[in-house]
Amino acid sequence: MVNETDIPNRGGVLEAARKIAEILPPTPLLPVEIVGVQCWVKAECLQPIGAFKIRGAWHALTSLNEEQRRRGVVAVSSGNHAQGVAWAARRLGIVATIVMPRDAPQVKLEATRALGAEVVLYDRPGEDRDEIAAQLITERGGTLVHAFGDARVIEGQGSAGIEIAVQLGRAPSRIITPCGGGGLAAGLALACPNSAIFPVEPEGWDMVGQSMAAGEIVRAPPDAPATICDALQPVATKPINLSVLQGRSEPGVTVNDDEVRTAQRFAFSRSHLVVEPGGAAALAATLAGKIPLDADTVIMLTGGNVDPVAYARIISGE
Amino acid sequence: MVNETDIPNRGGVLEAARKIAEILPPTPLLPVEIVGVQCWVKAECLQPIGAFKIRGAWHALTSLNEEQRRRGVVAVSSGNHAQGVAWAARRLGIVATIVMPRDAPQVKLEATRALGAEVVLYDRPGEDRDEIAAQLITERGGTLVHAFGDARVIEGQGSAGIEIAVQLGRAPSRIITPCGGGGLAAGLALACPNSAIFPVEPEGWDMVGQSMAAGEIVRAPPDAPATICDALQPVATKPINLSVLQGRSEPGVTVNDDEVRTAQRFAFSRSHLVVEPGGAAALAATLAGKIPLDADTVIMLTGGNVDPVAYARIISGE
Repeated sequence: MVNETDIPNRGGVLEAARKIAEILPPTPLLPVEIVGVQCWVKAECLQPIGAFKIRGAWHALTSLNEEQRRRGVVAVSSGNHAQGVAWAARRLGIVATIVMPRDAPQVKLEATRALGAEVVLYDRPGEDRDEIAAQLITERGGTLVHAFGDARVIEGQGSAGIEIAVQLGRAPSRIITPCGGGGLAAGLALACPNSAIFPVEPEGWDMVGQSMAAGEIVRAPPDAPATICDALQPVATKPINLSVLQGRSEPGVTVNDDEVRTAQRFAFSRSHLVVEPGGAAALAATLAGKIPLDADTVIMLTGGNVDPVAYARIISGE
Repeated sequence: MVNETDIPNRGGVLEAARKIAEILPPTPLLPVEIVGVQCWVKAECLQPIGAFKIRGAWHALTSLNEEQRRRGVVAVSSGNHAQGVAWAARRLGIVATIVMPRDAPQVKLEATRALGAEVVLYDRPGEDRDEIAAQLITERGGTLVHAFGDARVIEGQGSAGIEIAVQLGRAPSRIITPCGGGGLAAGLALACPNSAIFPVEPEGWDMVGQSMAAGEIVRAPPDAPATICDALQPVATKPINLSVLQGRSEPGVTVNDDEVRTAQRFAFSRSHLVVEPGGAAALAATLAGKIPLDADTVIMLTGGNVDPVAYARIISGE
């Protein structure tokens, strides 16, 4: 049953921003020059869990009632939402079970366990992660905290947009953001109603871009190509995300692995920030000249959780 | 001739902080958990030039009169002060000549040239860099902006301490900082008169620590050991630094290369920050348990300019 609070809205984003400001300092908005234009990066890779997902998780878990908190939460995640939910659950004394793909980066698996969550592994191509989560909930009870298709999660992610407007002293002209299921993109669209929102997805995994173009949910085919952006491979967006983004978001933009690696190297040498592949997708699109820039443009660097050996290979250009 | 303004003082630090706030946003003060204690890192590696040296350079160059600005500036630096002076000089339309060691990291040489400065190379063990600078000034004129033995440079570096106190909402209990010639340590001592200052130097290059212990300037021997901390190898501190630090600074602490690499890996995986070897020295000392920590302790991460291949090797544990 859908009630009014199941629809994400700007009031919820403002409420999330207020709650998050109580426990997390704003991540820095740092100046950066890209193709000759001075603009900004929002360094969400500097969150305590290394990714923006801490926002949505905190807003969602703090919105649960006592009974729900007692029954625990279940999440499905390639790693960053996992850490966000585990971090929030530990702070609130809630039991968290997280379904993660077996091939998730080792750092994400370890960090999620280190935060006290129980991790249940699945094989990415073979098994349906939503089914595993549904089965877990049937067996054990608990509330599903979806990684992107959840009103509170969307509102929580949107709190980054509220911070940006405060830090910039005005609404950004455009926000360019890595996009997986569309939780952050939708949240930013609600947070900054006068800013253009540009979601950037990996080539072959642009399920939000394709869904916006088709006007309906388009699922990734079983033979979707490999991508280094492990955080941006949901099989499909959800109606709640599509309904916010339709008419509010610019058309989707895609980037390939080489463009992403170039962006990771740029963040390393120019901004001295460690950014994971998926977290660098928006920067990659701007460096490739795919999106216009101006002085009020903000580029989201959404995460920095990357295995050291994989990162070393990328940075040294191997 | 020494006049009153040649003695660095807290008023000068406050003036520097005011000037720097006009052109540079404060670098973030980020929470970090070290050996079970929640404390803070000041991420100076996020400055536009990737190091705190932009502070002292800006305060020093903006303090020059019109005639001095016309004659240009000369600096001697292993790379970060070089970039700071080049950055400030370009903004102010001042010609900058920088004397740098031939074995400085390639990224530092390239970045200094990219900022429009003329780079004059010298061989680190054979030639005396101060002599080369003196000869340049005799030949061409210009004002020497010393990397640490300069009142305005010391005051400028101290502006980081003013920012820290504002961000923390109170004076830090202790500031732990990488230390080369003692410019930053002296500036922080002036900025935060009630905070304990802990300078951390590479083993065998603890010329500030040894000089404080001896009560006079101690020079590095010609056979001083190799260190990966390229930014922390001045042959000796200067009287101006020693006079500020004597009686104000805690005894010096040293770290070895392995401890520094461990700190770089910690900054990578926990804070998602790229930190160069010298920039990680203070963090290294805390991770090695050499300095007590509490909730009001601030650790300076002073720079992030490191060659990618060298960094990749360190991160992947080779």
